[in-house]
Amino acid sequence: MIAREDKMNEVVPKSKVIRRTRTTWNVSPSFMAKNTFNPIRSIIETMNLSPNPDKKMIALSIGDPTVFGNLRPAETIIQAVIDAVSSGKYNGYTMSTGYEEAREAVAKYSSTPTAPVSAQDVILCSGCSCALDICISVLANPGQNVLVPRPGFGLYKTLAEGLGIKTKPYRLQPENNWEIDLIDLELAIDEQTAAIIVNNPSNPCGSVFSKTHLERILQLAEKHCIPIIADEIYEHFVFPGQTYYPLASLSEKVPILSCSGLTKRFLVPGWRMGWIVINDRQNIFTPEIRKGLQTLSQRIIGSSTIIQGALPAILANTPQSFYDDTINQVKENAEVSYSILSTVPGLCPVMPSGAMYMMVGVDMHKFPKFQTDLDLVEALVTEQSVFCLPGKCFDFPNYFRIVLTVPGELMKEACFRIREFCLLHHRNNQVKLQIDTSIHSLNYKKDISAIISEKNTDFCDNYYEELEP
Amino acid sequence: MIAREDKMNEVVPKSKVIRRTRTTWNVSPSFMAKNTFNPIRSIIETMNLSPNPDKKMIALSIGDPTVFGNLRPAETIIQAVIDAVSSGKYNGYTMSTGYEEAREAVAKYSSTPTAPVSAQDVILCSGCSCALDICISVLANPGQNVLVPRPGFGLYKTLAEGLGIKTKPYRLQPENNWEIDLIDLELAIDEQTAAIIVNNPSNPCGSVFSKTHLERILQLAEKHCIPIIADEIYEHFVFPGQTYYPLASLSEKVPILSCSGLTKRFLVPGWRMGWIVINDRQNIFTPEIRKGLQTLSQRIIGSSTIIQGALPAILANTPQSFYDDTINQVKENAEVSYSILSTVPGLCPVMPSGAMYMMVGVDMHKFPKFQTDLDLVEALVTEQSVFCLPGKCFDFPNYFRIVLTVPGELMKEACFRIREFCLLHHRNNQVKLQIDTSIHSLNYKKDISAIISEKNTDFCDNYYEELEP
Repeated sequence: MIAREDKMNEVVPKSKVIRRTRTTWNVSPSFMAKNTFNPIRSIIETMNLSPNPDKKMIALSIGDPTVFGNLRPAETIIQAVIDAVSSGKYNGYTMSTGYEEAREAVAKYSSTPTAPVSAQDVILCSGCSCALDICISVLANPGQNVLVPRPGFGLYKTLAEGLGIKTKPYRLQPENNWEIDLIDLELAIDEQTAAIIVNNPSNPCGSVFSKTHLERILQLAEKHCIPIIADEIYEHFVFPGQTYYPLASLSEKVPILSCSGLTKRFLVPGWRMGWIVINDRQNIFTPEIRKGLQTLSQRIIGSSTIIQGALPAILANTPQSFYDDTINQVKENAEVSYSILSTVPGLCPVMPSGAMYMMVGVDMHKFPKFQTDLDLVEALVTEQSVFCLPGKCFDFPNYFRIVLTVPGELMKEACFRIREFCLLHHRNNQVKLQIDTSIHSLNYKKDISAIISEKNTDFCDNYYEELEP
Repeated sequence: MIAREDKMNEVVPKSKVIRRTRTTWNVSPSFMAKNTFNPIRSIIETMNLSPNPDKKMIALSIGDPTVFGNLRPAETIIQAVIDAVSSGKYNGYTMSTGYEEAREAVAKYSSTPTAPVSAQDVILCSGCSCALDICISVLANPGQNVLVPRPGFGLYKTLAEGLGIKTKPYRLQPENNWEIDLIDLELAIDEQTAAIIVNNPSNPCGSVFSKTHLERILQLAEKHCIPIIADEIYEHFVFPGQTYYPLASLSEKVPILSCSGLTKRFLVPGWRMGWIVINDRQNIFTPEIRKGLQTLSQRIIGSSTIIQGALPAILANTPQSFYDDTINQVKENAEVSYSILSTVPGLCPVMPSGAMYMMVGVDMHKFPKFQTDLDLVEALVTEQSVFCLPGKCFDFPNYFRIVLTVPGELMKEACFRIREFCLLHHRNNQVKLQIDTSIHSLNYKKDISAIISEKNTDFCDNYYEELEP
């Protein structure tokens, strides 16, 4: 239409130009709407998901710890909201970045000895998605790029590409506990790279980075002067014996926007309480970035004041036993699933260290009936009523992701069904006969440590290859 | 930097091109962050607002009905939230457009006999701001424009310009109860006009459009094939005797995205519960616009599930007496303020019919000490500790806006202080002496109807000019 207008201006004397308006309804969505694209949803929409009517559906697909009812927020969390709404003090508008006292509570919760922050470093958002949206929006312009993990959470792409910002993937290494391939990361950096998104603990991998690995990531960011967006929504959500390091606690020089929220650890994803913590010990973010974050937070004016009002009590009073109970349930599910799926020829689960997911590699050559992980996942629904997310949803084919927040008995049941399915469709059906009895007698509790130690150094080397002829 | 890269590519053989990365920290905010700009905040930030320490501050500036504590949400509203959070049913993720039952409740609440809608026409958002953001984002591309009322709510500009979308103002007529100047509106339409934003009842004017006027607006939109974004956050918030017509109820052909929420009528702006209702009787919005709205809602994944869970009960159970009480308080404040300020030489209040605001014209010639409405408002804070928003905040100089939700006694006190201030600074100080006693004896309850009927047809014609020598 612009071109037409320009042409018209050339041939018609200016005084005679008639202002043009539309004469037909021609309402189409904006580029932003067209480019805001949820890869998970788009992939699932193309799939034929018809569960077996004889088997109860078990959805291992949804990263929502609340769906099965076994994991519930602590009483103190619920009571904090009841108190907030009953007080009548939290009905009005507040600053777009949130109540001072709520931001102070987050600052206290997020501070570390090496990286203390205060209320002015905190911006409350409508969930961690909104926090990520604001961080990407403030740092990158259309045409620039942000680096994202692969496999990784599809939302980064959804948020960036809707704004005309590109995503460039860097590889995570399943063979190395999903650590970042640092050479690949460095090669992905170019002059248009506006930020690196680091997700730790990881969705979909369930991995938890070591201190050394995080320091190496920071060194790379410092070398190339690229700020980091740390998606730490699974912070502290690590199995006993593992240590979670907030990226900012290790960063001397690299400016970091850390995103987190109540979502996962407190088991209330629907409440939409997320936040950004600005970590910037060298003042590289200048006042302009802080102002930009604040300005962008005005677009939707923060998260619900009721939850903001409850936030200080939630962060202060939630008992350690609640966190421990949740983690222990997830860890037990991880161990159970791992021990069962490790015994399945053609599958290569990677034992997680935190978060609430496990990635399971599929040696597709062993299942010649299926061309892709999508086909396999689709058939698993049709035959066994078990739905896992195909790796393609995380830009990482030949894997599927299972969630570890389902009730223990369902978890086991789902894994046994996966095993039955895989044995049935394995290219060599004899495998089934050979291992069928041995598996049933497997004491996974006892054998887990041996399996884990061997598997972790031996990814996708077909542990049970020896069973095959 | 792109130019440099291009140049480099010209002179260096491709095989020898070295990938360039940044070598210095150079982190500046994105265009979006720079262009997302809150006119009200920007204007206020430049003002010197130092209240008189001897007088208690009365803020007539904030469009938040909850700040003074006189207007509180009904008990049923609070109880609905307590029930929702106690039930444990509303902690998880839901669809990005909201729970089906909550959307159904909004559809029921928003349906009219001529424009029935269903749950699939409703998208729940994080407040009405977010609803407006999504509507503007889905309809307009960078470089296009949306038409906005003048005077009007600054957020339209904040939201649009951050996305590179222009706003073009159309004039509201104070002399005609703030009806739209339809000629001005039509002249503003061009081929790049993606939507008309119609705000009824109006912030900052407190005006309520007649059925005939709304029909004329629709005719214009239809003639030029422009969809409408109806900002109806003050729906039903009209004084007794006035009638509110949802724009969609009158629209045969024009597709309308209506935005509203709990914010104002239910006195809970902080809760961030807004919604979009898609009205499109001729299916002009095609599936793509609906899909676009849904996709954009995925960027932040809706409003808090706790409030969503409470929504059906809030919309069904809030007693009529609660709505009536609120409206009556606001109406009484409108009458009191109008009657007092009408007696002030140099001021021309325009009596509102709804919402919670009144615009007051200032004949700046009468106050030669002040160059602009900003100077006058600033001095009003310094001397009288009364803060009104200058008209410039609404792109309409020589006015100020007062909010009508303050407790009755404070409202009166504030108006008397404004009067004292204006009399003191009037170019002819004799006025003060002449009217001082007469005003104190004014029975505003009794005289209000006479004053209103005369004033509305006689805008800024200086009703009290006769008092001057």
